[in-house]
Amino acid sequence: MNTPRILSTPGANAYAYPLLIRHLLANVANQTDAEIVSGELRFGYRAFVDRVTRLAALLTARGVRAGDTVAVMDWDSHRYLECYFAIPMMGAILQTVNVRLSPAQIDFTLRQSGASFLLHHADFAPLCAQLLLALPQIGGLIVMDGADEDNDYEALIAAASPDFIFGDFDENAIATTFHTTGTTGDPKQVFFSHRQLVLHTIALAATLANQPDGQGMRRTNVYMPMTPMFHVHAWGMPYVATMLGVKQVYPGRYDPATLLALKRREGVDFSHCVPTILRMLLDANAAGGDSLAPWTFVIGGSALPAALAQEAEMAGITILAGYGMSETGPVVALARGLQPDVAKCCRAGFPAILVQARIDMDKGGELLLRAPWLTQGYATQPDSDTLWADGWMHTGDVAALDGDGALRIVDRLKDVIKSGGEWVSSVDLEDLLVALPGVAEAGVIAMPDAKWGERPVAFIVAARGAPPPDMDLLCVQLQQHVASGRISRYAIPERLVLVEALPRTSVGKIDKKALRAMLA
Amino acid sequence: MNTPRILSTPGANAYAYPLLIRHLLANVANQTDAEIVSGELRFGYRAFVDRVTRLAALLTARGVRAGDTVAVMDWDSHRYLECYFAIPMMGAILQTVNVRLSPAQIDFTLRQSGASFLLHHADFAPLCAQLLLALPQIGGLIVMDGADEDNDYEALIAAASPDFIFGDFDENAIATTFHTTGTTGDPKQVFFSHRQLVLHTIALAATLANQPDGQGMRRTNVYMPMTPMFHVHAWGMPYVATMLGVKQVYPGRYDPATLLALKRREGVDFSHCVPTILRMLLDANAAGGDSLAPWTFVIGGSALPAALAQEAEMAGITILAGYGMSETGPVVALARGLQPDVAKCCRAGFPAILVQARIDMDKGGELLLRAPWLTQGYATQPDSDTLWADGWMHTGDVAALDGDGALRIVDRLKDVIKSGGEWVSSVDLEDLLVALPGVAEAGVIAMPDAKWGERPVAFIVAARGAPPPDMDLLCVQLQQHVASGRISRYAIPERLVLVEALPRTSVGKIDKKALRAMLA
Repeated sequence: MNTPRILSTPGANAYAYPLLIRHLLANVANQTDAEIVSGELRFGYRAFVDRVTRLAALLTARGVRAGDTVAVMDWDSHRYLECYFAIPMMGAILQTVNVRLSPAQIDFTLRQSGASFLLHHADFAPLCAQLLLALPQIGGLIVMDGADEDNDYEALIAAASPDFIFGDFDENAIATTFHTTGTTGDPKQVFFSHRQLVLHTIALAATLANQPDGQGMRRTNVYMPMTPMFHVHAWGMPYVATMLGVKQVYPGRYDPATLLALKRREGVDFSHCVPTILRMLLDANAAGGDSLAPWTFVIGGSALPAALAQEAEMAGITILAGYGMSETGPVVALARGLQPDVAKCCRAGFPAILVQARIDMDKGGELLLRAPWLTQGYATQPDSDTLWADGWMHTGDVAALDGDGALRIVDRLKDVIKSGGEWVSSVDLEDLLVALPGVAEAGVIAMPDAKWGERPVAFIVAARGAPPPDMDLLCVQLQQHVASGRISRYAIPERLVLVEALPRTSVGKIDKKALRAMLA
Repeated sequence: MNTPRILSTPGANAYAYPLLIRHLLANVANQTDAEIVSGELRFGYRAFVDRVTRLAALLTARGVRAGDTVAVMDWDSHRYLECYFAIPMMGAILQTVNVRLSPAQIDFTLRQSGASFLLHHADFAPLCAQLLLALPQIGGLIVMDGADEDNDYEALIAAASPDFIFGDFDENAIATTFHTTGTTGDPKQVFFSHRQLVLHTIALAATLANQPDGQGMRRTNVYMPMTPMFHVHAWGMPYVATMLGVKQVYPGRYDPATLLALKRREGVDFSHCVPTILRMLLDANAAGGDSLAPWTFVIGGSALPAALAQEAEMAGITILAGYGMSETGPVVALARGLQPDVAKCCRAGFPAILVQARIDMDKGGELLLRAPWLTQGYATQPDSDTLWADGWMHTGDVAALDGDGALRIVDRLKDVIKSGGEWVSSVDLEDLLVALPGVAEAGVIAMPDAKWGERPVAFIVAARGAPPPDMDLLCVQLQQHVASGRISRYAIPERLVLVEALPRTSVGKIDKKALRAMLA
């Protein structure tokens, strides 16, 4: 025998346990007294499981069947969490719609997903009414938290049958789908199966709980997402929190004052967000100036500037970077830092359990990945075949692996600037600029140059309440980093442009396509 | 569409990540400075991965191929740990041989496993020489830690190629197999696939790391097994510890003085064992009397008497029960306790992540289980079909589910005593007896009775150095628990028999079959 052997005598009635999202709820209702808090509502996990069951019964009564796609447009709420479970658990596909896209893009994503049912918050009623005129395939509709009393989520859940039976099916069935918005072209649809989400959840739970004390999420934390739930499963954290029976707080539409008030009222001590939201919270807290400790933030979505991390630490926030993409489920790596070594907390971090990371020096240092939860493709075959080559997912990110095993993301492959034969990282340069006096934000892009190939150009947003910084002085201040060897002399920007604000994508990243258009 | 949908456009070169044991090593070598300590050896994880690779190259050079079975007979060592990885990773099957069985039983297990290669410690050389005469199918042999210089494990590893490439294969391939010894009949062979062991490892890692502080294992613990590695993967803990890059200490053959010395020298703070080993360690430590804190023990294999747990807590050990069987991988449940609520720590504990537990009241309260890592069968079909019925594994244990979600094991189904129409738990009675003055150990079985159906009989071992307890007085002392309602009056034993020692099975459980024979 030269092939591995499979068991030839399994029990005739043995249960070949499929990895299904419903199994994440195996025993949580019995084991925790924690609550789920959302707006004025708060309830325990027994009630949560009951509500998930009723939602499935409700959707079934409205005609939703296994294999159908159900789209959701909502702020972060208990309703969204219930959709995270009920819709995949009934064998249907949850489409999380990015409500920050333009109406034309939302139309595109709804159309491509083939959704036949839509649950939306009342805030999106005018938009949805308009969209649905052109989307007759969407036959069913429930308004969440809505003014329409006959069609209100809470009333419908209360009236629904509590007896829906969730069955088993292939663990490779699609559980969720959503669209990722790159900076070019149409949004791309990614897919995650039950197996992938279960593996992401248990591996992430093990990774988070093994973080140094106060740098992860364990059963005893109080969790509040500050990444939209339409964005890559809110980084998979709601699945982890629910499996563990953690107390969860859902903040609705993000408003800094509300987020800070919830943190204090409910004892929130674990969250995650993009740098922009962190910036917003620090500004909102600056008025009061009280310490926010204990509060751990995982920061992802775009690079975490060291200066911002430092400011957060001073406000009592424990900060660490995570790394992932829409295509990766998303968590691939997580920083572990010992304060006050802020620089270490700003790296993409240590590849998580089961994640294989490789750096392809033949392709400019591109980061290649394998993990059990990476999307296996997009909606269209050619895009899928570009994403995967030689059995490795191509991230489009340039990365380096530090001696201690942590990843550093150098830049997006397409944002790296090649000047005078030297590679200049736009991310590095932004980080250094933001640390200079008077600079709040910086975005760096390449400008074509006849002599040097490309030259860096920096867009600068001045710090609030301070006089705008002198552009020439900034260049002089950058020279110290040339002297110290941190950057090459080619990295000194050719031009610095003062702007009111940086253009951002729907998920808060600097929109470099828009910057390039501004330059042109 | 009324069935769940599978993605129709995966990338042509997408990697459908199989759950293989080699993936547990994905990035550990880069991320830890911890050491693996065994006898005089100590090395880091980079060296560990190199050694695993060399072991696979060595076995390949000796003719071992995917699908072959390789048997191992050793004490707890780095060599065993290397076999845990190298043998399954090459697609072969690791058979962990229970060296405490009789020669005839070991012969039976080697024969049934179809092993073609054997690695054994020098301590077993005479036994193996004799066994191999009748087992010509075992063609290859390596002596571990042996006197035979030409065939010594360390020398062979050093000389082996460092370049073996581990490939991918079906995640349902068998990774490990071993025999469970019930108290009746021949040992039964169980099987675990790569998928099962990977899922057991990551779910156990998440469960352990989410224990209250000081009651589980996290990245920063120092781990030493005190359950033999031939026994259900040493409860799966070496796989968890290795995946996380934890410092590990392998103690060789168990000797109380050595275990205590290693604990102190290496800073061991997490272990697991059966109650008998705990008893032995407490006795050995009594002489010195020093506190053993910090040291967490997961106790399993048989019920943990509250009196023993209390004594351990007084010696500085944090104690909690776990529950599992050879058939279950093994971990199914783990206690979480707040000291000094020792009774809660002695329960079987909370079903772990993904574990479904059901109590079948139609079958006398038998505990039924589902989890992704339960053996799918035994070597023979009829046994497999008895183990699994209606898609649930039948544990043969009688259990109850407490209000807080924790399992309590009442008794083995076949050890429960039915007296005067009342169920009497032999485990309960043993626990109460051991708590009485002068009693060190107690074993309770049923004696047929014409009038009452069955009556309990207790075998008592006196505490060391104390006068033997008076049997009538013990019955009087038990009456207080009748008065308090803890046990029924039928539970007062019909007879108490003072014995020198209780017969034990090879894994340290009270051998009730032998007690019944003694009684007859």
